[in-house]
Amino acid sequence: MTDTHAVGAGSAPAPTVFFLSDSTGITAETLGNTLLTQFPAHRLERRTIPFITTVEQARAVVHGINRVAASGTRPLVFSTTVNPEVRAVLAQSAGRFFDLFDAHIGQLEDALGTAASGAPGQAHGVGDAVRYQSRMAAVEYAIEHDDGQSLRALERAELILIAPSRCGKTPTTMYLALQHGILAANFPLVEEDFDTMSLPKPLLAFADKCFGLTSQPVRLSQIRQERRPGSNYASLQQCSFELRNAEDMYRANNIPYVNSATMSVEEISATVLQRMQLHH
Amino acid sequence: MTDTHAVGAGSAPAPTVFFLSDSTGITAETLGNTLLTQFPAHRLERRTIPFITTVEQARAVVHGINRVAASGTRPLVFSTTVNPEVRAVLAQSAGRFFDLFDAHIGQLEDALGTAASGAPGQAHGVGDAVRYQSRMAAVEYAIEHDDGQSLRALERAELILIAPSRCGKTPTTMYLALQHGILAANFPLVEEDFDTMSLPKPLLAFADKCFGLTSQPVRLSQIRQERRPGSNYASLQQCSFELRNAEDMYRANNIPYVNSATMSVEEISATVLQRMQLHH
Repeated sequence: MTDTHAVGAGSAPAPTVFFLSDSTGITAETLGNTLLTQFPAHRLERRTIPFITTVEQARAVVHGINRVAASGTRPLVFSTTVNPEVRAVLAQSAGRFFDLFDAHIGQLEDALGTAASGAPGQAHGVGDAVRYQSRMAAVEYAIEHDDGQSLRALERAELILIAPSRCGKTPTTMYLALQHGILAANFPLVEEDFDTMSLPKPLLAFADKCFGLTSQPVRLSQIRQERRPGSNYASLQQCSFELRNAEDMYRANNIPYVNSATMSVEEISATVLQRMQLHH
Repeated sequence: MTDTHAVGAGSAPAPTVFFLSDSTGITAETLGNTLLTQFPAHRLERRTIPFITTVEQARAVVHGINRVAASGTRPLVFSTTVNPEVRAVLAQSAGRFFDLFDAHIGQLEDALGTAASGAPGQAHGVGDAVRYQSRMAAVEYAIEHDDGQSLRALERAELILIAPSRCGKTPTTMYLALQHGILAANFPLVEEDFDTMSLPKPLLAFADKCFGLTSQPVRLSQIRQERRPGSNYASLQQCSFELRNAEDMYRANNIPYVNSATMSVEEISATVLQRMQLHH
């Protein structure tokens, strides 16, 4: 008997994971997935079911979970729903229920001396309208100022990411704009910029807003090969040259920088926020 | 005696909230902030301290928390750190400690029949390189295909968001690309598109990938006024006309759509993922 879904010898088939929410499901996914990274051997199928706000919807969800449970391993169910009736229904599924809301809310009520509002998940709604609008404006700003396309209103930038091509400037800028409402521009460093060790002219007045990215030559060359195979642009020699000069330029101008070669946009962003003290 | 920081009569000053992590801090912020939305009366100062990986760093963090504690209300401390020595140090601060990791990991070990790996937070690292690269490629694709700028490779799109100007197409597209790796284009509907009720020509072959956004005329007019005050573009009459016609077009072509007027990009995105069954 072979079961291709089995993980390792003798272990049970991997359970299906459900993320249940009365709102977007983002919190349930985030904490659930974080916990599951502690069990890397298990390749789990994951399903997010957002906007469960009524007992009828909850019953339909439970029906679906029970069907999965009947056909194999007991599912894992991560829930952040707030409404007590909805939660009571969801908790009765055949899955193993992790109530991410309930685990801490009593302790928080005690700490803050207030009862929880019981309102369904507002964490990823519009919430604070001013803060929300600043995030949306930051996305527009990031698109307008991507890759040095516009130098207009550069003085409004809170951050200018600089780096040779393909070190991660664009996705990091988008992440900082979308998640943190940071007004971020990004600006490419090209070979001509290394004729002197001073910053490119448009950035000279804004050195204190600049943060540099660098990478590993081999890694950068691989990434560039995907875009322009066999080009000088993608050659190891050219990548080494650009990265070495970019790092020299950062140091000469006291620009903080980080090697992004093995980092995710989330890790680069957290590093930039911390080093530039930009957290809103 | 007055304390401008006090919330409501007789309540204590709002505590400072710390989000502590051995990685980016995203999970601690996400769950911590979600829990705190249940206490909307409290305007709390929040500080994220990422990348706490050594006992020495943990001691420095505890020192900072204790200083805040000594000067006022007991801080709230949300932690997702995994390393037991680091956690032991952090748990000893004068703050009230919420261990978001510890609360569920034992139950998960039991469910999966495996011990937790104990590796520091990998949830927002590069992780699965293929999945990560697809997210980065999706960001590029979204920028290239923003606002109908490029029709190249539209057949590769998994989703085409369509709507009149300023209904939220661009930030939603960026969110879906960055967070979910969805290849998403977006395409503006303008007055000329409403001469007939058929989709704009470049989209005719891709109707099954289209999702529509609409809004409330008053809300849309307000948003457009900020961009072009006093213009016909921003007039209530023009906004009503475009939204009514867009909705008619969606219905005539069986395009699913949602009214985004009071929704966040996260809520719009969760709705699109669910309705289009796009979750990766």
